Amino acid sequence: MAEDISRHALAHAHPREVRALIRQGKWRLPTAGLCQGRVQANLVILPRDLAYSFLLFAQQNPKPCPLLEVTGPGSTEPVQTAPSADLRQDLPRYRIYRHGQLEDEVTDLMAIWRGDLVSFLLGCSFTFEAAMLRAGVPVRHLEEGKNVPMYITTRSCQPAGIFQGPLVVSMRPIPRPLIPRAVQATARFPAAHGRPVQVGNPASLGITDLAQPDFGDPVTIRPGEVPVFWACGVTPQAVAMRAKPPLMITHAPGHMFLTDLEDEALAAY
Amino acid sequence: MAEDISRHALAHAHPREVRALIRQGKWRLPTAGLCQGRVQANLVILPRDLAYSFLLFAQQNPKPCPLLEVTGPGSTEPVQTAPSADLRQDLPRYRIYRHGQLEDEVTDLMAIWRGDLVSFLLGCSFTFEAAMLRAGVPVRHLEEGKNVPMYITTRSCQPAGIFQGPLVVSMRPIPRPLIPRAVQATARFPAAHGRPVQVGNPASLGITDLAQPDFGDPVTIRPGEVPVFWACGVTPQAVAMRAKPPLMITHAPGHMFLTDLEDEALAAY
Repeated sequence: MAEDISRHALAHAHPREVRALIRQGKWRLPTAGLCQGRVQANLVILPRDLAYSFLLFAQQNPKPCPLLEVTGPGSTEPVQTAPSADLRQDLPRYRIYRHGQLEDEVTDLMAIWRGDLVSFLLGCSFTFEAAMLRAGVPVRHLEEGKNVPMYITTRSCQPAGIFQGPLVVSMRPIPRPLIPRAVQATARFPAAHGRPVQVGNPASLGITDLAQPDFGDPVTIRPGEVPVFWACGVTPQAVAMRAKPPLMITHAPGHMFLTDLEDEALAAY
Repeated sequence: MAEDISRHALAHAHPREVRALIRQGKWRLPTAGLCQGRVQANLVILPRDLAYSFLLFAQQNPKPCPLLEVTGPGSTEPVQTAPSADLRQDLPRYRIYRHGQLEDEVTDLMAIWRGDLVSFLLGCSFTFEAAMLRAGVPVRHLEEGKNVPMYITTRSCQPAGIFQGPLVVSMRPIPRPLIPRAVQATARFPAAHGRPVQVGNPASLGITDLAQPDFGDPVTIRPGEVPVFWACGVTPQAVAMRAKPPLMITHAPGHMFLTDLEDEALAAY
């Protein structure tokens, strides 16, 4: 089982190999640190009759919802980002929501799959965090071994059909002299949330206490550091849950889909 | 009528004023050169049941189909890009296609409008041509008072539902020393076709004779100049016509929709 294979051994594996291990049930853990330099993706699966509104929502809110690929109804292969992959069984863990309620957490979708399901793959912050590290900008929650702190803001997304709700942001404390570098490094990746939405003023987003994130863990903000906020991939899931669709399937938090795309390719997407 | 108002007088007008003139029937001519510095948009209107596939097509082919806004079914006001505008009467001229055939050219859509129509506004090359001129890069078809030459390529768009077909490109001859500048100036505007898709090798796109464009006019290529190709907004119209939808409405060529957006705002879209 999962314990047999070390994260370190898969740090530079090809995503195809790791997807195969996952499909064989040999990896059920979060995917952070695997296949470094490759794009990992958020997954949202919805019935076809809600797909238009969700696609439009993503189109209108590209910072929290950067679309990498949308499959045809019933199709399980993301032909553009991971040919030969099977979205029903190549993620380590899935969550199934019915009418907005978490119903189950499963390790494959073989039993539940239907011909009317449309899969959306969305860019993920792992891509821009790698870019920050390459640019010499520290990423605090990685240093502290925590989940990134996330906050529900008072800023509304542009609504589409039943999908509406607030923007969710993630926060990383950045030493003041490195702010321009952090902005530039992340702005290169609009398909992975892109540049920050706010620098240094949590109140303007309606955030009153950085020590109490709505999701994830609080992190240390050191003297001389400024909280910087990026649009977060939790946004579309939070919005979809509010909309209470009859069925919605997502990856389990941290258990992302490994695409074949190289991070750098997204810079020129 | 149109002859009473000079293009020059409207070169720096606010788009709202020009839309009002159009709505009053006082301007029926092409919109090139009007409201300089503001974003002009291609318009494609389709029935709701085809909107998902067309939206997905645009999402998957962002270079030829850079979406600026999508209205709700039946809505005539593009609230994000031109609040208070009416898409049924604020363009100088429209084309109505039924089953892929041009049926009529009209000056408003009041009689034909239906509650299931979805409007797509797509970025237009005027935005990046203005950026080229500001960067000191010549734009030949403007110098020669012609339409830009356009070519159907052998490169396929990523299909979505009934929408599929070849990429159409526009060509501008660029003096070799100015190629990097032309690329950089246009790459800043992904919402207006962005960077070129090809530099200097028409054969790689299946283009055999630059003197015989599929649409528009041939232009002079001088010694030391290289043909540079950009994805063209004619692509989605050509693709939609191939798909023969029961009803499709577009702007008449050159008779674009004037949004309130400033060109420069698109650089940070």
